[in-house]
Amino acid sequence: MRPAQHHRRRPGGRLPGTGDWLYGRRPVLEALRARRRAIHELWLADSSVRHGADDDLVEMHRLAQAAGAICKTVARDEWKVLPEGANHQGVALRVGGYPYVGFETILQAVERDPSALVLILDHIEDPQNVGSLLRTADAAGVTGVVLPEDRAAGVTPAAVRASAGASEHLQVAHVVNLVRAIDALKKQNCWITGLDAGKDARPYQDIDYRGRCALVVGNEGEGLGRLVREHCDFIARLPMRGHVASLNAGVAGALAMYEVVRQRGS
Amino acid sequence: MRPAQHHRRRPGGRLPGTGDWLYGRRPVLEALRARRRAIHELWLADSSVRHGADDDLVEMHRLAQAAGAICKTVARDEWKVLPEGANHQGVALRVGGYPYVGFETILQAVERDPSALVLILDHIEDPQNVGSLLRTADAAGVTGVVLPEDRAAGVTPAAVRASAGASEHLQVAHVVNLVRAIDALKKQNCWITGLDAGKDARPYQDIDYRGRCALVVGNEGEGLGRLVREHCDFIARLPMRGHVASLNAGVAGALAMYEVVRQRGS
Repeated sequence: MRPAQHHRRRPGGRLPGTGDWLYGRRPVLEALRARRRAIHELWLADSSVRHGADDDLVEMHRLAQAAGAICKTVARDEWKVLPEGANHQGVALRVGGYPYVGFETILQAVERDPSALVLILDHIEDPQNVGSLLRTADAAGVTGVVLPEDRAAGVTPAAVRASAGASEHLQVAHVVNLVRAIDALKKQNCWITGLDAGKDARPYQDIDYRGRCALVVGNEGEGLGRLVREHCDFIARLPMRGHVASLNAGVAGALAMYEVVRQRGS
Repeated sequence: MRPAQHHRRRPGGRLPGTGDWLYGRRPVLEALRARRRAIHELWLADSSVRHGADDDLVEMHRLAQAAGAICKTVARDEWKVLPEGANHQGVALRVGGYPYVGFETILQAVERDPSALVLILDHIEDPQNVGSLLRTADAAGVTGVVLPEDRAAGVTPAAVRASAGASEHLQVAHVVNLVRAIDALKKQNCWITGLDAGKDARPYQDIDYRGRCALVVGNEGEGLGRLVREHCDFIARLPMRGHVASLNAGVAGALAMYEVVRQRGS
């Protein structure tokens, strides 16, 4: 315990309303633990506090104070800062924007690690899917995640929520041009597999993922972009035995990531 | 084309407001294709129709007319029948309630099929997770799905939406007592695997799923219920290499279902 830290203030901590409002217990706790964003303001619902704070709430309060953030107990009907219907579980945290890393950081990590695994999201639009993919990426131990800047959901508070806070621990890069990023990964001896149907697709378990590799998950409706698809080394398909001939993007990506984990053994 | 059918009316089709409102293109199309619910009323957004109906809309209209349903073109601001924020894609369908099957139906299918696979949802609360699990269950070719009646999300319109309509083709049973259902499955030589952490858990890929089997996915926060867990033959855990030590319930269930598919070969 270093009590002096309890009164340290970050300069950004006093600007009302700037930054992102994260919400939900896991997202708030993981953002506080990861210490990668500026921490401005912690809100706890008065009802949660009145019934006695549990270990998680005590940890949140301690970490927020140590980061110099304002800590408030707020009545439920004042939670207007959050989007309608946000399942906040009585906890919200105002923080700096998502700490994207430069794509160079991911390239360097790939260079260092002969079994690097990169996840590339080709214009996933639903923050729930982005969050689900980030949560699984963390569990599968991916090296980094690459997103395009345009027409795609970024790491928004809704995506952080859906990731159960896993986003806060991951290296995620925003790139202008996905095709250029794929080519740069190839130069680092990274094999690129896109998930998609089509005549050229092979069963996803027939591909060797034991070396450096990247998985590309396409848009929910349209799948992989044409140019992105052309730049993949392999196209992998998942077996479909039902009436609805596709899987949720978050599920398809998870199956591929865990196939990589399986091939590499435990 | 059988034009006579276009004017057949189902008796329930005229009661305003009864039944479920399904929404979204895939859910509506799959409900119409599956023909397992009473079809009362199809709404299409005037904007979709004005710009020329595509193949899916034409098929919806044809199937709804064939089922004797009212077909309406409705202005966007009149879509108040749907929940706030429902992503309806300009399509909604009023139908009878979800066509649950009796648990006996699933038991009989298990008896007939030496490689039956049953999915059991132990109090999954989020309709998104229920829908995601149903969509994957359809793709993995499960025999049937079992849900408890109490404290759990059923096959609601939100779950149908999240399943991309796969729910409409699946055999789903509602049971009063999950433990009794598990015991009945065991009597049909069905091996029961619960997904959970714990000292008794073994890696999910070390279990043999080639015979009749059932997978149990637990509640998002609390995991498997105590009694349900005790009645499982095996407890299976998924490898976790990250900071957030759990996967989304929909993803965990998908990985287990596709491990069954993998062991059984293509």
